[in-house]
Order: sequence, then structure tokens, then C-alpha cells
Amino acid sequence: MMLTDSTAAQVRAACAAAATAAPVYAHLPVSQRAALLRALADALLAARAALVPLADRETHLGTARLNGELDRTVFQLRGFAIQIEAGAAQPLLDEPAVAGTPPQGRPRLTRIAMPVGPVAMFAASNFPFAFSVLGGDTASALAAGCPVVVKAHPGHPGLSRAVFDLAAACLAELMLPEGVLQLVQGAGIDVGVALVRDPDIEAVAFTGSLRGGQALWREANARPRPIPFYGELGSVNPVVALPAALQADGPTLAATLAASITLGCGQFCTSPGVVIVRDDEPGQDFVRQLAEGLAAATPHAMLHAGIRAGFNAGVARLHGHAAVKTLLAAPAGGDTPGAHLFATDAASFIADEALREEVFGPACLVVTVKDLDETLAVLAAVQGSLTVTLWGADAGTADNRRLAAAAQRIAGRVLFGGVPTGVAVTAAQQHGGPWPSSTQPFTTSVGHAAMERFLRPVALQDAPGWLIDARGQA
Amino acid sequence: MMLTDSTAAQVRAACAAAATAAPVYAHLPVSQRAALLRALADALLAARAALVPLADRETHLGTARLNGELDRTVFQLRGFAIQIEAGAAQPLLDEPAVAGTPPQGRPRLTRIAMPVGPVAMFAASNFPFAFSVLGGDTASALAAGCPVVVKAHPGHPGLSRAVFDLAAACLAELMLPEGVLQLVQGAGIDVGVALVRDPDIEAVAFTGSLRGGQALWREANARPRPIPFYGELGSVNPVVALPAALQADGPTLAATLAASITLGCGQFCTSPGVVIVRDDEPGQDFVRQLAEGLAAATPHAMLHAGIRAGFNAGVARLHGHAAVKTLLAAPAGGDTPGAHLFATDAASFIADEALREEVFGPACLVVTVKDLDETLAVLAAVQGSLTVTLWGADAGTADNRRLAAAAQRIAGRVLFGGVPTGVAVTAAQQHGGPWPSSTQPFTTSVGHAAMERFLRPVALQDAPGWLIDARGQA
Repeated sequence: MMLTDSTAAQVRAACAAAATAAPVYAHLPVSQRAALLRALADALLAARAALVPLADRETHLGTARLNGELDRTVFQLRGFAIQIEAGAAQPLLDEPAVAGTPPQGRPRLTRIAMPVGPVAMFAASNFPFAFSVLGGDTASALAAGCPVVVKAHPGHPGLSRAVFDLAAACLAELMLPEGVLQLVQGAGIDVGVALVRDPDIEAVAFTGSLRGGQALWREANARPRPIPFYGELGSVNPVVALPAALQADGPTLAATLAASITLGCGQFCTSPGVVIVRDDEPGQDFVRQLAEGLAAATPHAMLHAGIRAGFNAGVARLHGHAAVKTLLAAPAGGDTPGAHLFATDAASFIADEALREEVFGPACLVVTVKDLDETLAVLAAVQGSLTVTLWGADAGTADNRRLAAAAQRIAGRVLFGGVPTGVAVTAAQQHGGPWPSSTQPFTTSVGHAAMERFLRPVALQDAPGWLIDARGQA
Repeated sequence: MMLTDSTAAQVRAACAAAATAAPVYAHLPVSQRAALLRALADALLAARAALVPLADRETHLGTARLNGELDRTVFQLRGFAIQIEAGAAQPLLDEPAVAGTPPQGRPRLTRIAMPVGPVAMFAASNFPFAFSVLGGDTASALAAGCPVVVKAHPGHPGLSRAVFDLAAACLAELMLPEGVLQLVQGAGIDVGVALVRDPDIEAVAFTGSLRGGQALWREANARPRPIPFYGELGSVNPVVALPAALQADGPTLAATLAASITLGCGQFCTSPGVVIVRDDEPGQDFVRQLAEGLAAATPHAMLHAGIRAGFNAGVARLHGHAAVKTLLAAPAGGDTPGAHLFATDAASFIADEALREEVFGPACLVVTVKDLDETLAVLAAVQGSLTVTLWGADAGTADNRRLAAAAQRIAGRVLFGGVPTGVAVTAAQQHGGPWPSSTQPFTTSVGHAAMERFLRPVALQDAPGWLIDARGQA
């Protein structure tokens, strides 16, 4: 499919339509919003046979993964429908007046939340369903009562258009304004910049690279009236493999980690990019097993040529680094990239920022440490990550307490088993960590709390009954 | 008292001490944090006889107001102690594992929140107790488990030092690290910039001017690792006086509004700076009564010469504006500023950004409107405000619904009676609205939710019992 960039006038028109739809959509009964989310889920399911092959042609992710991702997208849409039917989009804290002088005395205050308005949503390349046109960002914004202008990812333009057409049909069927969901597209940065700058846009949700995300985040802050920019950017997702874990289960863990690193050709924001092991024999055995597992893996082709070029550049940077040993490499040509494994020591990792940059794809950097203190120093150097995984920290020792604290300090999710790839969509999830993994680490882009990004708190003082009742019933 | 600027080395040392204290303080049992907050409250109360006259000499706010503000500060400190004793600093959402394949199947996830680390707090000039060394920002950060480095306001250096000395004594008495609370000072912007840039600072709380706040917000975003900047900046706090209210109670409302505009010499972030009235006889009567009320008011001296100069410049700007009529003025000299009242029409207000800028002090701009649509257009032009007050919108008419929606769109608090000055410290409060009134309008700087600014969510996956139990019991 040919990708035609939206013109500036088309971007403007999409945002204007979203702004016109915003008050209408925000004031709909929640049951109608839930009906829309369910209709979108049903439409995706009904079109599975057409959508999955189309997605596979455009992304090379394989039909098994893409079928699973479609299921996840449906699950998310229905999950938010259930959430808002239960009242999650209409928090209400009503405090009666208290007689007397302040600070004890006070008027009646009712704390509610209101939809922030039109949201610009930047679709991701690596989740053509779950973080794209009808993905989690769109679902959470629609659930919150906000229209969405989607910037389609140029990596899957045909799928984006097909899914958008389904959604437009749902809106028409339910007699909702077209402006509730709009689609714009552009291969370069211009369309995205125009979208973020548009005065009718009230918040931005972005999943993508650190470079692109940072540029758009700056645009959001440079507006005459800056707006929230919820960016989910790069992350190296350190895995700490402690001696206790390797002793108990080294070979299995090596195989599990190799599978996680190469899953989806390493194209996950939660892909483990750094593994921290002790400089001892069990550690070196584990690294050898990991290299064997990676050598045996057969990653599929990457999403598109640009991502492949970025991966090649990333592994070349490590390959040529004086403090880095290449344990496993593959030729830069060929249809599929092949897995890569590198190794360095703690001091080099801490000294050079370049070693801490995410390499998006099936590559991993082993960091060898002498002891707990070096492990803590390596984690601190990472600064911000979506996840940290701790293997072998189950016992409540003083060392493990320090390690758990250090992991929580830099990550949004800390795992004590398993691998970071795979992000459950549930109330307790937190997908967002300190910079650079997120621009707003107090919010999450996966799970029920994702809706809070689009609901701004308002305190009503001495509000008339009709206003509060309207909130309760809507 | 002479103000000596902190040196760069002193700022660095304060931040380093805060970083060293951070993990210790974060892991204290909550009962000990609560004990600190209560001890700080008790120390303020015990020192009232010395502190209030000192504050009055430095701020001219009067002992009645300052005694009330000290009470409010004590109330806030104790309020956060009560909150954290009830568990508010340790939210915990524990979801058991669900068997099966994703998306339904999932690991055990436990959502907690962790103290973000050292907070830089910029004290305000206009609340020498309640938004200063031991004010709401400090109280909420300490409650959340974060050390605080206070940048004292140069407008009340003696009071800042005296209150800090009390706090340092409390820390020593409770055998807590000095780094839990530090004080730096500086008359210019350099010390503040150094503080925001310091790598050990994890979040910033700021109350002050749009210009100063915006400059520091840019510094926070320009760091290699940007951090949250919670800024509470300028706000014009529109009051909409509808015909229904003026008919019922015009003269009383005029007197109430005049008192609110001149309260504390107009030096409140919630001071009503814009009044929207209909272009009819009751509207003009109300404006006349308001002018009379303001003329009779006797505001005290302003906080300091810089604020007075800013006020003089602001009223001069309005006074010389072609589309503005001066209804009440006072000479620019003299010890106290005198109240000012100006008037313009809706079209001029909407056309010229300069008319929508906050004038900090006892000044108000009447905006005359023809009808509801013009009222809505004037509110939309304001864009962001801490508050909007609607008088006469009690009936559940279509017009009032539109007005209430428009007010909620631009404000953090919407009042249906009374005046915006006076901000209750309670769970339902929201003190923070869209830009430019706040840099982070999804958060509040007053009320119980203020603590959430310093508690970052973390999801623990398959966490061992000792870690989750430690959260529950702490």
C-alpha cells in the first residue's frame, strides 16, 4: 500500500473534528462509551482472517504472534469497557462542609475527574494491533471520554487503514461523531510535529524511539500552552542473574533468556538488553549457555528497513568498542538479523553512556560484576528502565533487600522470576519507569491505570445537586 | 537579617546529604515519619510567640493572618501524619496469578508506590509559613518518604532560618539524619538553577511567578535526565457574576468580592483577577458597588519591593491600554498600593493576551459580556486557571450546564458560591489547573493528594513474601 502523507490541512481538520466531538463524547453516558469499545473489539475479531495476514505481510511478525496480539487488543478494549461500566472513569469523592473557621472549617468539596480532551496518539511499529490504531493508548483515551487522533505508523499503513475503516464503521453504526477517532499518516516527522503543535490537542501518547519521542516531547513543551506528553521510549531492562539462581537452574534460565531476547526478533520495549552476572565459573557457564541458546535461535525478519539499519548500527557500535568482547555475532546482510551477544565489565559499563543505550533488536550485553556493590552500581548507572528482573533474590537477606530497593529505584516493574517480555493488562500493572524509559514515570501505558493519563482532577466547591448527580449517573 | 547566598558547594552538599538520607528515610517505619511531622507541628506551635512577629516584620501580612497561617501549617503537618498512619503513603494492590495463556493468564502482580527521592522545594513569598520551609510541599514530601532541600524565599530570610532551626532540632531529637531537611538560600536565580540541575534531585515543587517558574521548569526538562517539576504559577481566577445572583444579592456579593480582591493585599494565587459581568443595568450597578467596596478597602503594604514594582507595572499596563477603562486607581507611590479596578469588553479581552496576564496584587479587571456565548469565549481565552467561580449557576438549566462544563475545562477548582481565596486542606481538594496555572495540572499542591506527586508507582511481579510484607508493616 502506498503511504500518502496527510497534508497540514488534513491534520488541522482531524484535530478540529476531534475538538468538536470532544464535549459531545465526554458527556455521553458511560454505557455508550463502553458499547463503542465492545463494538471495536467485536469488529477486530470478526475481521481476524483478513487483518492478520495483512499485518504479517507488513510486519513479518508471524501469524501466531499476530493472532495473539489481536486477542490482546480485544482483551484491552473489553477490559476498559468493564472498567468504565464499574465507574472507573468517574471517580467521585464527596466531602460535606464542616462548620467553623479554617483550617478545620471548610465548604463542601466534591473531587471528580474530567476527560482532558482530544488526544494525539502515535502508533508503534512493533505492536501493529496492541499499540496501534485501536491499541491500549486509544482504548484508554476513548474509555476516559477523549477523542483520539491517531498518527498511523508508516511500517504498517495498510493494516492501519483497514483497522481505522472498521472503527469508522463502528462509529457510524453507533451514530457517534466521526471526530471521535481520526487517522493521519506521515513517513517523516512533519505530520507528527503538526499534530503535537495543534492547539486543539490536549495530550499526547507516544510509543517509540528515544530520539523521536524526545523530539516530540520537546514540541509539546514548546507550545504556547504546553500539554502532557506520555512517551514510552527506550529501555534496556536489566536482568540480574544471581549465583543462587544459576546454581539451581542455570541451563533452563539461559534457554529462557535466549528465547526472551529473540522473541519477536527482539523488537519489544521490554526486551532484556543487559544481563548482569558474577565474574565466577557458574556465571561464565551461564553466559556460554546463553550464547548457545542465542546461536540456535532463528529470529524472523525485522519490522522494516529503518529498524534493521538501526540494529546494525547498534551492534556495530558494540562490536567496535574497545571495552566490549563480541561473544556471538551474525553477518549484517541477510533477510534476518541473527542474535548478538556482547560482554563488558562493570567499570566500562558505568563509564560509557554509549554502552547503556538500547539496541532495538535481538542483542544483549553481558555485564560482569565482582559483587553486590558492583551490581548496585551498574543498576544505578542505567538510571531508568521499564523493568528490572532479579533471579535468585527470593530469600529475605540484607543483600536482597538492597538489590530490590535499587531495582525499584530505576524501574516501573521489578520481576523476581520469568522474563520481562510479556506485559499483563491488569489493574496492578505499571508500564513506565524513570527517564529515559518514560517521559512521565508516574503514569502507565499498560493496564487499568493507563486511563488516568486522560482524566484531570477537578474539585467542585458547593456544587449544585444536578451537577454531582449528573456525574453519578452518566 | 542579612541574606547570604548559598555557594554552589553548599547547594551540592545539601543535595548529597539528602541523597544519602533518602534510602534511610524511605525505609523508616511510617510511624517514625508521622512522629517527625507531629514534632514539627508541635515545634511551630511552641514557637508561635517568636515566629509570628518575626514573620510580620519581614512580610507585612499582619499578625491575625500570620497566626491563622501558622495554624494552617500545623494542620497540614498533622493531617499528613494522620494520612500516612492510615496507610496513604503505602498503597498496595495485590493481584494473584491467573493460570492460562495471556492475555487472561498472568503472573502475580503487586502494585506499590515508592518515594521518588530528594525533592527540591521553592518556598513562596506570599505564604511565609504554609508554602515555605515547613509548608504543604515539604509536609507532603516528608510524608511520602522523601528528603527535602528547601530554597528559602529571600522575602523572609529570618523566619526561614528560624523555622529551619526548629526543624533541625526536631530531626536531631528524633535521631534522624540531617539530610532529611536542608536549607539553601539565594536572592537571584542561580541557587535555584543549581538546585534543579543537581543530579541527586528527583523532583521539584515550586510556588511562585509564571516567569520564574517557567525558567526553572525549562531547567528541569533540560537535565540529561529530566525530572518532574510541580510548578504552581500564575492564575487570574475568573468570577462569573450571572444576573440571577446579582438580582438576589448584588450588594453583598460586591462587598464579598472586594474583600477577596484586597485580602492579604491581593497576594494570593487564588485572588480573583477577572470578573465577568453582563452588559446590563444590574451588571453596571454591581461594578459600581464593587468599585466602592474596593475604594473603601485599606490594603496593607506588599510583601517586598520587587512585588510592589511588579504590581505597579501591571496596573500601569492596564491603565495605559486603549481598550481598558480605569474605574479605580491609586497613586503608585505610598507605603501601601491601594486597590485598582479596570474594565474592558469581551472582544478586547480575547484579542489581547496582555489583558489575560495575572497582576499580582489588589487589582481586578471587569470583562463585560453580552450573553452566555461571550462568557464562554472569555473563559476559553483564559485557557488555564486554578479556579473559576460561578455565581448564580445553581439551577440545572442548559445554559448553566454549558457554563459549568466550560469552567471545568479550564480550572482545577470550580466554585458555585463564595470566593476563591481560601483553599481547604482536605482529601477532595484540587489546587492546580491547566497551564499556565500549573505545570502538572493532573496533580495538586494542596490537600491529601499532594503526596502522590512524590510517590512513583511500581509493579512487583512474583515478589517474595518478605518484600510485600515489609510494605504492609512499615
